[in-house]
Amino acid sequence: MALKARVLYDFSSENPGEISITENELVTLFSEEELEGWLEGENSRGEAGLFPASYVEIIKDHITSNTNNNGFSSPKAKAQTPTHASYTSSGSGGGSFHTSQGSDDDWDDDWDDGSPATTAPQGLGTTPPMYPVTSSLPGRRESTQSHQQQAKSSATVGRNLNRFSTFVKSGGEAFLLGEASAFVKDGDKICVVMGKHGPEWQEDPYPFTCTIDDPTKQTKFKGMKSYMSYGLTPTHTNIQVNRRYKHFDWLYARLVERFPVISVPHLPEKQATGRFEEDFISKRRKGLIWWMNHMISHPVLARCDVFQHFLTCGADEKAWKQGKRKAERDELVGANFFLTISTPSVPLDLHEVESKIEGFKSFTKRMDENSVVVNTTINEFARKQAVGFKKEYQKVGQAFKLLAQAFELDQQAYSVGLNKAISDTGEAYEAIGEYFAEQPRQDLDPISDLLDLYRGHLANFPDIIHVQKGALTKVKDCPKQEGDLHDRCNIISCATLAEIQHFHRTRVRDFRSQMQHHLRQQIGFFQKITAKLEDVLQRYDDDQ
Amino acid sequence: MALKARVLYDFSSENPGEISITENELVTLFSEEELEGWLEGENSRGEAGLFPASYVEIIKDHITSNTNNNGFSSPKAKAQTPTHASYTSSGSGGGSFHTSQGSDDDWDDDWDDGSPATTAPQGLGTTPPMYPVTSSLPGRRESTQSHQQQAKSSATVGRNLNRFSTFVKSGGEAFLLGEASAFVKDGDKICVVMGKHGPEWQEDPYPFTCTIDDPTKQTKFKGMKSYMSYGLTPTHTNIQVNRRYKHFDWLYARLVERFPVISVPHLPEKQATGRFEEDFISKRRKGLIWWMNHMISHPVLARCDVFQHFLTCGADEKAWKQGKRKAERDELVGANFFLTISTPSVPLDLHEVESKIEGFKSFTKRMDENSVVVNTTINEFARKQAVGFKKEYQKVGQAFKLLAQAFELDQQAYSVGLNKAISDTGEAYEAIGEYFAEQPRQDLDPISDLLDLYRGHLANFPDIIHVQKGALTKVKDCPKQEGDLHDRCNIISCATLAEIQHFHRTRVRDFRSQMQHHLRQQIGFFQKITAKLEDVLQRYDDDQ
Repeated sequence: MALKARVLYDFSSENPGEISITENELVTLFSEEELEGWLEGENSRGEAGLFPASYVEIIKDHITSNTNNNGFSSPKAKAQTPTHASYTSSGSGGGSFHTSQGSDDDWDDDWDDGSPATTAPQGLGTTPPMYPVTSSLPGRRESTQSHQQQAKSSATVGRNLNRFSTFVKSGGEAFLLGEASAFVKDGDKICVVMGKHGPEWQEDPYPFTCTIDDPTKQTKFKGMKSYMSYGLTPTHTNIQVNRRYKHFDWLYARLVERFPVISVPHLPEKQATGRFEEDFISKRRKGLIWWMNHMISHPVLARCDVFQHFLTCGADEKAWKQGKRKAERDELVGANFFLTISTPSVPLDLHEVESKIEGFKSFTKRMDENSVVVNTTINEFARKQAVGFKKEYQKVGQAFKLLAQAFELDQQAYSVGLNKAISDTGEAYEAIGEYFAEQPRQDLDPISDLLDLYRGHLANFPDIIHVQKGALTKVKDCPKQEGDLHDRCNIISCATLAEIQHFHRTRVRDFRSQMQHHLRQQIGFFQKITAKLEDVLQRYDDDQ
Repeated sequence: MALKARVLYDFSSENPGEISITENELVTLFSEEELEGWLEGENSRGEAGLFPASYVEIIKDHITSNTNNNGFSSPKAKAQTPTHASYTSSGSGGGSFHTSQGSDDDWDDDWDDGSPATTAPQGLGTTPPMYPVTSSLPGRRESTQSHQQQAKSSATVGRNLNRFSTFVKSGGEAFLLGEASAFVKDGDKICVVMGKHGPEWQEDPYPFTCTIDDPTKQTKFKGMKSYMSYGLTPTHTNIQVNRRYKHFDWLYARLVERFPVISVPHLPEKQATGRFEEDFISKRRKGLIWWMNHMISHPVLARCDVFQHFLTCGADEKAWKQGKRKAERDELVGANFFLTISTPSVPLDLHEVESKIEGFKSFTKRMDENSVVVNTTINEFARKQAVGFKKEYQKVGQAFKLLAQAFELDQQAYSVGLNKAISDTGEAYEAIGEYFAEQPRQDLDPISDLLDLYRGHLANFPDIIHVQKGALTKVKDCPKQEGDLHDRCNIISCATLAEIQHFHRTRVRDFRSQMQHHLRQQIGFFQKITAKLEDVLQRYDDDQ
C-alpha cells in the first residue's frame, strides 16, 4: 500500500525538482525518509518531485511524523529546547542573521541552507508558514530599500529590557557566584592585558588572513538539489577548504554560545529563494568576506578551536565530525568562558569601569541611530544617481543630439565637423549618465554594507553590557566586600572593556579604510567623467 | 488754483521717488510739464512724487492732455503712424525685443528705458494698462522658466502668412518693378562676392571689435530718475563712448528699416522694473555683448553709417544730433537698399537658388524646434542641479557629519583623526552640492543665451525669405523674360543667399566656441570636485 501524507499548508514549487502542493491535498510518498528536510512524492495532479517534509503530515497510525531527524525543523522541538543561540539572537537587529543549534547528525543529513524546511516552520502552530522571500530578487535598488526599512524598524539598540535575565542566561551570574567550574587547559587561556587605552585582548602572535573564492554551485540527489560551496584559503595553512553557508551558520552558533561578552560578527542575511542569483551570490560573498575579516582580526575569535577547525579541516569526513562534536560538547561555554580569562594584575577601578561602560552605551545608541540615517541617506543617494541623475544627463545628451540633428540639415563642409562633435557630446553625456548609475555599487554600497555589519555588532552589545552591569550590581548589592566576588567581577569587566576596546579599534580601522576607498572611488569616477569630456572637447578642435 | 488730474488706471510705486495712485483718484500736479513721461504731484494721501503721465488725465478745459511731447507714449499716436520698424517687429519671436521710431527731439526729452510711461500705454484704449513686469525679478530660475515658456509659445518659425504683404512692405516689390530710385554714393555700395560655398558678403577689410564695460548708474532730475550707461570702446578708434539701452533700441530700429534682407540681431529683452538689479544688469550686459559681437562680425552691419555713428560719436551733442537726424532721414532704406548691392558678374541659377532657399527654410524650422527642446532641457537640468543635485550632495554631507558626531562620543586619541576626517568629508560634500548649484551659470546659461539669440535670428528669416520668394514668384509669373527684372531678382537672391551664408558661418563659429566653452567649464567643474575630494582624502592619512 502506498504511503500517503496530508498537506498541511500550501507550498509552491520554486526550483526545478520541487512540486507544488495544496492544503488538504493527499500526496503519495515514494519514501518515508527525508532528504535534508525534503520528502519525495507525487501530488494529486500526478507531478513527482520534492516538497518540504514539514508541510505534510504522514498518514500512518494517526501519528504526526513530520519532524525530521535533527529535531530542528519542528517548532515544538525548538520551543522546548531554547539554546543560548536562540536568546542571543533575540537581542540582534532586523533578522539579518540566523542561528542554528548543534546536532550530532552528519552534515549530509543536516538542514539545507534556507530550504523551506528550515525557514517555514518558524510560524508553524499558529499560522500557516510564510515563505520568507516569496519572489525572486526584485532588483538591486528595491532590495536595498527593503533592507533600509528593516534597518529603520530596529533603530533602537537595547531591546532586551530584562537585564537580569541576560545576566543569568549568559552564565555571568553563575560565574560571579563561584558556581562555574571546568578544567581549563593552557591553550584555552585568554589574556586581557593593560594597554595604553585600558584593558585589551592580547594580540594574536600569529596573525593570518583568509581568502574566500567565488562560490561554485554543487549538486546532490542526482542534481535535484543544489548548493553553493565557498573555497576558503587561510594563509597560515595555505590549504583550501570548502564550506557551505550552513557551515558558517553552525560555526556562528557555536561562537555565540562560547563567548558571552564577545561580539560575534553577524553572518550576511539568509535568503531562501533567489540564492543562486548573481546579485545575491555576490552580495553574500562580500558579506562573508567582511565577516571573515572581522573574525580574523579578533584576537580571541581568530584563535579559538572551533574556528580553527572550520578553517583548517579538509575533506576528511571523520576528522571533521570529530571536531564538530568536540565543539558542540565544549564545556567552556557560558559561565565557564570566564574561567579562561586572565586579567592584568592590578584590578580595575569600579567607578571608572562604570563610567566607561556608560559612555560606551551612549556611543552605541548614537552610532546606531545615526547609522540608520546615514544608511537611508546613502541608499537614497544611490537610488537618485541610478535613476534621477542618470536621466538628467541622458536628457541633456539627447538634447545635444537633437541640436546636432538640426545642424546636420546644413551639410556644408565647414559645418560637418561641428555637427559630429555636438553629436559626440550628446553621446558623452549619455555615457556619463550611465557612469552615475553604475557608480554607487563601487562607493556607496560598500559603506552601506559596512554600516550593516556594524549595526550587527551594535545589536550585540546591549547583552554584553548587561552581563557586566549585572555583575556590577551584584557586587554593589553585597555589603561584604568579598574578595572573590570582586575578582570575578573584575574578570567580567576586563573582558567587557577589552571587547569594547577591540570594537573601537576595528571601527576606526574599518571606517577609515572604507571612507578612503569611497573617496578614491569618487575621485576615479569624476576623473573618468573629466576624461570623457576632455576626449569630446578634442573633437571640436579637429577641423578648425 | 492748483492743477489737478484724474487717475485713469491704478499705478503702484515700485521705485524710490514714485508714488502709488488709484483709479478715479484726484491728484494735485506740481507742474504740467512732463519729465520723460512722468509727472510730479501729490496723491490724495498726501504723498508727493512721480507717476506716469499716461495714467492720468489733466483736468483743464475738458481736454485730455496726457500725451507727452515726443508723441511716443500715446498709443494713439503710435497706432496712427505705423513705421517700418513696427511691422518688422511683428514677425519676430516672443517679444524679446522692442523697436522705437525715430523723432527729432533731443535725447534728453526722449523716452526713458522701460519706464512705465513707455510700456504701459501698449494696452491703453481697451483695457487698463498692465504693468509689464509687476514684481521685481523673482530669482534666476523662475525667470528662466518664464523665458522658456515664451520660447515655447513661439516655437514655430514662419508666423507671417501673408508673404505678398512682406514682399511689398519690405520694398522688395517696388525694387523689382524698377520703382526704387536714389543716389548711391560709392561708400554706400555693398558687395556680394562669389565664395567657395556660394554668394557671400564681401569681408570687412578693416575688422574691429568693441568692448562693453559694466554699466554705471547715472541719475538725473536731482536723483529722482536714474538709468544705466554702458561704456563702449571700439578697437578702431579706441575711444570710449557712453550709450544707454534706449540708444541701442533706436539703433536697432534704424537697422531693421535700413536692411530688409539682413537679420539684425535682436536686443536683449526689455524690462521695466528690476532693471537696476544685479542679475538683470549682468544678463543685459551679457546680451548686449553677444549683440555687439553679432553686429561687428556682420560685414554689412559693421560698416554701415548709423552703426559707426553709434560707436564713434563722442560727447559732442551737436555732432550726435546731426548723425541721428541723418540716419533717420536716410533714403537708402527698404526698396532703395537693394540699389546699393553689387553682385557677382555671373547671375545665379534660379532653380539652384530656389532649392537652397527651400533647404534653408527646412533648416530654420528644425533648428527652431530643436532649440526649444534643447533650451527647455538645459534649463531644466540647470534647475535640477541648483535644487535636486545640490540637495542630494548636501544630504550625504550631513549624513557623514552625523556619523562623525556619533564617532566623536569616542574621544580616544586614535579616533580623533578619523572623526575629523569624516566631518571634513561631510563638509566637502556640502561644498560639492554648492558647486553643482553654481555651475549652470557658467556652462548652461551661456548656451541658453546663445540659443535665445539664434532664435531671434531664426524669427527674422521668414520675412527675409518671403522677400526673396516674392521676387522669384514675380519673375516666374512674368511671361517675358525681362532682363532688368531678372537682374533685380538676382540682386535680391544674391543678398539673401549671402545673408544665409553669413548666418551659417556665424552659427558654426558661435556654437563651436560655446560648446567648447561649455565643455571646458564642465571639465574645470569636475576637476574642482576631484580636487576637493583629493584634499579631503588626505585628512585620512594624516594620523595613520
